[in-house]
Amino acid sequence: MPILAPSDKALVPFVSVENMMRLVHRIGIEKMLTGLADYIAADFARWELFDKTPRVASHSDVGVIELMPTSDGEAYGFKYVNGHPKNTKDGLQTVTAFGLLADVDTGYPVLLTEMTVLTALRTAATSALVAKHLAPKGADTMAMIGNGAQSEFQSLAMKAVLGLKTVRLWDIDKAATRKAARNLKGLGLNVVECDSAEESMEGAQIITTCTADKQYATILTDNMIGEGVHINAIGGDCPGKTELAPAILTRSDIFVEYPEQTRIEGEIQQMEPDHPVTEFWQVLTGAAPGRTSDRQITLFDSVGFAIEDFSALRYIRDHIPGTDCFLDLDLLADPDDPRDLFGMVQRATP
Amino acid sequence: MPILAPSDKALVPFVSVENMMRLVHRIGIEKMLTGLADYIAADFARWELFDKTPRVASHSDVGVIELMPTSDGEAYGFKYVNGHPKNTKDGLQTVTAFGLLADVDTGYPVLLTEMTVLTALRTAATSALVAKHLAPKGADTMAMIGNGAQSEFQSLAMKAVLGLKTVRLWDIDKAATRKAARNLKGLGLNVVECDSAEESMEGAQIITTCTADKQYATILTDNMIGEGVHINAIGGDCPGKTELAPAILTRSDIFVEYPEQTRIEGEIQQMEPDHPVTEFWQVLTGAAPGRTSDRQITLFDSVGFAIEDFSALRYIRDHIPGTDCFLDLDLLADPDDPRDLFGMVQRATP
Repeated sequence: MPILAPSDKALVPFVSVENMMRLVHRIGIEKMLTGLADYIAADFARWELFDKTPRVASHSDVGVIELMPTSDGEAYGFKYVNGHPKNTKDGLQTVTAFGLLADVDTGYPVLLTEMTVLTALRTAATSALVAKHLAPKGADTMAMIGNGAQSEFQSLAMKAVLGLKTVRLWDIDKAATRKAARNLKGLGLNVVECDSAEESMEGAQIITTCTADKQYATILTDNMIGEGVHINAIGGDCPGKTELAPAILTRSDIFVEYPEQTRIEGEIQQMEPDHPVTEFWQVLTGAAPGRTSDRQITLFDSVGFAIEDFSALRYIRDHIPGTDCFLDLDLLADPDDPRDLFGMVQRATP
Repeated sequence: MPILAPSDKALVPFVSVENMMRLVHRIGIEKMLTGLADYIAADFARWELFDKTPRVASHSDVGVIELMPTSDGEAYGFKYVNGHPKNTKDGLQTVTAFGLLADVDTGYPVLLTEMTVLTALRTAATSALVAKHLAPKGADTMAMIGNGAQSEFQSLAMKAVLGLKTVRLWDIDKAATRKAARNLKGLGLNVVECDSAEESMEGAQIITTCTADKQYATILTDNMIGEGVHINAIGGDCPGKTELAPAILTRSDIFVEYPEQTRIEGEIQQMEPDHPVTEFWQVLTGAAPGRTSDRQITLFDSVGFAIEDFSALRYIRDHIPGTDCFLDLDLLADPDDPRDLFGMVQRATP
């Protein structure tokens, strides 16, 4: 029993990791991925309305902690996310995240949620949304290069959003491929374990790269990429971390979330600062063309943007009412008389 | 029962408003104010070590939402705080706040806490710490002008940290003065209710102004301020909001937290951008003089700085172990195999 029952205005719904997983199962993971893609599409379509503050990063020798805020004028959201590559050797996550949504009109938080699971879902939903618009018509086979934490989410989102039938897995670590294949078993995809990157790309119209290399790596070389494919490049997402040979970038039409950020963090950090790119939201609104020919190579240089997190927070806010997948937290002080905070504290004397 | 018991690494201690009030009573409010002043002094003394990122503000027509991050290289902290003056007419708080502390080495959060009550405590502790160094020797009487939510905390911190004996209350709203006097009754201070600002300043060596006026106001005019006093100006804390006549600023030696911020938000927004000020941390380390004569007017132009919140977060982190004043939140995903986030989600199937 609380000492003083706070008013409902002072309570903030909190979605723990456990409850996020329960919510995923309650909704159904494919339905949730499709729903997230819809929310992201809706927010990308009103791109110009958003306050696009750059992320605020605090760097140390071993990692980075970032706050990624944004607002559409009605809701305000931010994500806390860290990146510590050395964590895995101590049994910790490289990346953990949580997020908050608040009401712009009052400044009161309306949702606090884990975002490690949610970020995996929104990243996959974004990739699938983009591929749906840019991949060649009838694309049903994907090479999934890098079979780490994102790979199953990517595969399932492509199935849910654009009807992917076959995923061809490859990883430098065979155990990762086996793990992904095991996880994807029975989920309605034809799963093929491959022994090389080249093999994984046989017959694939979509090529997703999501490897964990920290240094400039060349996961894809120029001669590996044929005409007409869509490349979904997830892993090149911070300064010094890229996966594609520059020659591939030169041959591709490149689509990005937010150029200011992608030029620093994405594959295109390898190119001149004025290398032409298309902002994906303009494809969605019709302001810019997407795929224009069968022979074109389209490349989504994905780094993850605050608006995608915002869409994910909105989705969770809209889908928890009526469920038992959240806990009300007494996060905000709410004295009866706003001038009498001290009296509220005094009256809490045991 | 959780579906999957998360490891302790994935749990983040959370201090709710209720538990913060319980912690205040468990420790004792005066001991807590003194302890907070000590933590703030310790952090001000190593000022140069801090990453002093400016706050990130998201403005709307009706208010502002801010993130205030900082780091000392070992811990990283931020505060979420809003400011919505119109909220009070809807029975909501103008300001609500919560904060987070994380481990820089891993990026993992180690504390999530309400910060509405905690901010009131740290603001008062900061004022008292500064007054202890700048007020004339033997100061034992304070004029408390503006008897809103901060006034009792200010009074009690001055008692705990520098031995204040008498507080002389005044507010344009007599009901606020009566509320403050009632709350302070029996706490060991001689409390005097006054009928004018002038009356409140009789015999006072410390003058604290903390009014809620949003516009440029003149709570103190030049002729009201005699020699040798210490002015603790709390209320002038955002652009367009000041309390003191410029002539008082001209006659005073002005001490600030962080000039870059104070010149925008503090009383000195009324002065030229190069008006001389002393950074208070330099007084603490001996790098700059504090009070140098009995006749000098010292002025603390307080706006509230991220390092004070950081000190407060550190204090709470250090004082909750062994108490029942927190709840462990399952905020971070913690799969056994970091690459197997999807498997963790799958295994949570009911």
